[in-house]
Amino acid sequence: MRSQAEGSHPDLVAAMHHLIDAGGKRVRPTIALLIGSMLGADVQPLRNLAAAVEMLHTATLIHDDLIDGALLRRGMPTLNAEWSPAATVLTGDFVFARAAKLAADTGSVTVMQMFAQALSTIVNGEITQYFRSRGIASREDYYQRIYAKTASMFELASGAAAVLSPVRQPVVEIARRFGYEIGMAFQIVDDVLDFTEEQTTVGKPVASDLRQGLITLPALYYYENHPHDPHMQSVIERNGHSGNQLEQLVEAIRESSAIEQSLIEAEAYVQRALDILAEMPATPENEALAELALYIVKRKI
Amino acid sequence: MRSQAEGSHPDLVAAMHHLIDAGGKRVRPTIALLIGSMLGADVQPLRNLAAAVEMLHTATLIHDDLIDGALLRRGMPTLNAEWSPAATVLTGDFVFARAAKLAADTGSVTVMQMFAQALSTIVNGEITQYFRSRGIASREDYYQRIYAKTASMFELASGAAAVLSPVRQPVVEIARRFGYEIGMAFQIVDDVLDFTEEQTTVGKPVASDLRQGLITLPALYYYENHPHDPHMQSVIERNGHSGNQLEQLVEAIRESSAIEQSLIEAEAYVQRALDILAEMPATPENEALAELALYIVKRKI
Repeated sequence: MRSQAEGSHPDLVAAMHHLIDAGGKRVRPTIALLIGSMLGADVQPLRNLAAAVEMLHTATLIHDDLIDGALLRRGMPTLNAEWSPAATVLTGDFVFARAAKLAADTGSVTVMQMFAQALSTIVNGEITQYFRSRGIASREDYYQRIYAKTASMFELASGAAAVLSPVRQPVVEIARRFGYEIGMAFQIVDDVLDFTEEQTTVGKPVASDLRQGLITLPALYYYENHPHDPHMQSVIERNGHSGNQLEQLVEAIRESSAIEQSLIEAEAYVQRALDILAEMPATPENEALAELALYIVKRKI
Repeated sequence: MRSQAEGSHPDLVAAMHHLIDAGGKRVRPTIALLIGSMLGADVQPLRNLAAAVEMLHTATLIHDDLIDGALLRRGMPTLNAEWSPAATVLTGDFVFARAAKLAADTGSVTVMQMFAQALSTIVNGEITQYFRSRGIASREDYYQRIYAKTASMFELASGAAAVLSPVRQPVVEIARRFGYEIGMAFQIVDDVLDFTEEQTTVGKPVASDLRQGLITLPALYYYENHPHDPHMQSVIERNGHSGNQLEQLVEAIRESSAIEQSLIEAEAYVQRALDILAEMPATPENEALAELALYIVKRKI
C-alpha cells in the first residue's frame, strides 16, 4: 500500500501515509489473505488483491467522510478536516486509481471485473442512500443498503481470493458466500454498536445514524415492535422532532429487545459463515477465519 | 456507454444519460477504434476499450468541473451546476467504476494496468497543479502538466488498442507514441484557442487559463520573448494585478508571435504522429487517423 504512493506529488505521498498510518482493523485484506492461503493462491497476486481491497475501502471512506463532513475517523482527523474539498476529492480518486492498479496487478481479468463491479455496487448504494425517499423503513431496503455498503466488499475480498486459487468455480461461489455472510454480520454489529457503545469508545455520538435519519436494524426491529411510536414515525417521515424526543427514542431502542434481536440475526449470518468453513480445507487459516467470524459478533462486549 | 447505467439508481441513470447526451468530440474513443481496426483487433474488446476511455475522460471532467466550479461544459449545464457536491462526487465515482468495468471487459490484464496507470497519472497531475507553487513558469513544467492532463489518455487510447491487436510489443510502443504526439498537439492547440477564440465560440472568457493563474504555452513563449514584462511577472508570482493590467497582457499575447510559435510546436507534434502512421499498415483507418491528426491543428481556423 505504501509503495503505491511512490513517485507522486509530495503532498499526496504525505496524505497516503497519513491514511495508512490511521490503521483500522484491516478486516477485508485479512479475509482475502486467509481465504487465499487456505485455498492455495500464490502469495504475490494475493498480496496485491489484499492491498487493492483495503485501498478501495480507504478510497470510499475518503469521499464518504467528505460528503458527511466527518472530522474524525479511527481517532485521527479525516483528510477533509485538514484539506480543501478539492484536494480531498482528488486524493480519493488517486487512491481509487492505485487500488485499480493493484487489482490489475493480480493478473486476473476476473478479479478486475469483480473489483469494478464491487465499486459500482458500493457507489450506487451511496447514491441510493443519498437520494432516499422519506417514509421508507423496511428491512428489505436495509439489507440492500448494507450489502452495497459493506458485504459487497467482503464478498470481493473472499471471492477474488478464491479466483486467484487453484479451485473450481463452485468453490469460488462458496467463498463469495462466506464473504457475504460475514460482511452482513459485520455491518449489523456495527449498527448495533452505534446504539450500545458510549461516545468515548467509538468517537461519535450514540445513535449517530438515527440522528442523521438513517434507520438501521435495531431501529427497524424497534419499529416493528412499536409501530405506533410517534417519535419513531417522526424520524422516518423526517418531519422534524425536538432533541428531547430523539433522546427518548434512542434510550427506548437501547433498552428494548431490538438490540438482542439484531444480534441474534448477526449471529445467524456468522453461523452460516461457519457452516461454509466446515466444508473448506481444515487448515490453520480456516481456524483463523472461524475466529475472525466469531470476533465479528463478539466485539459487542 | 449507455448500457453501463442499467440497473442503477434512476437519478444516476438520468445523470449518465445527461452526460452522454452532452456529446463532445469523442476524439479519444475514435483514436482507439481506428488504431485497433487498423491493426486487426477484435471488435468487441475494442469497443469496450473505446467506451472505457471515453467514460474515464468523462469521470475526470465531472470531478474537475466540481473542483473548478465550472457551470457549463459543451454548452450544457455541468452536473455540479444542478446537483449538490456530494451527488456530483458520487456520480464521478460511479462513472470511474463503470469505466473500470469496461476496461476489465476487454479481457486484457495489460489494458487494465495501462488504464489504472493513466488514471493515476491524470489525478497526480491534477493534484500537482492544485498544489503548484508560485513563481514557476517553465516549459518543462508545462509539458509534464499537459502530458498528465491530456496526452496520457491519448496514449492509453492508442496503446491499449494496439495491445488488443495481433501485433508485437514494438508496435504497441509505436502506437503509444502516436497517441502521445497527437495528445500533446491537441492540448497545445486547446491552449492556443483559449487565447485566440472569442467567448461566444468556446463559451468561456478569452484567456480563462491565464485569468486563473495557469501559464500555458502561448504565455510561456510570450514570457520568454518578454522576460521583463511586469504584468506577466505579476501573474506568475500571483502578486495580484488589476483587471486592466490583465486585459493588456491578454491582448499583448494574442497579438504576439507566441501564438504562432505555439502552433508551430503543435504542428511538429502532429508531423511526428504522421511519420509514425507512414510506417503503419496503409488501411482506410490509417488515412482517417492522418486526417484526424491534421484536424487537431487545423481546428484553429
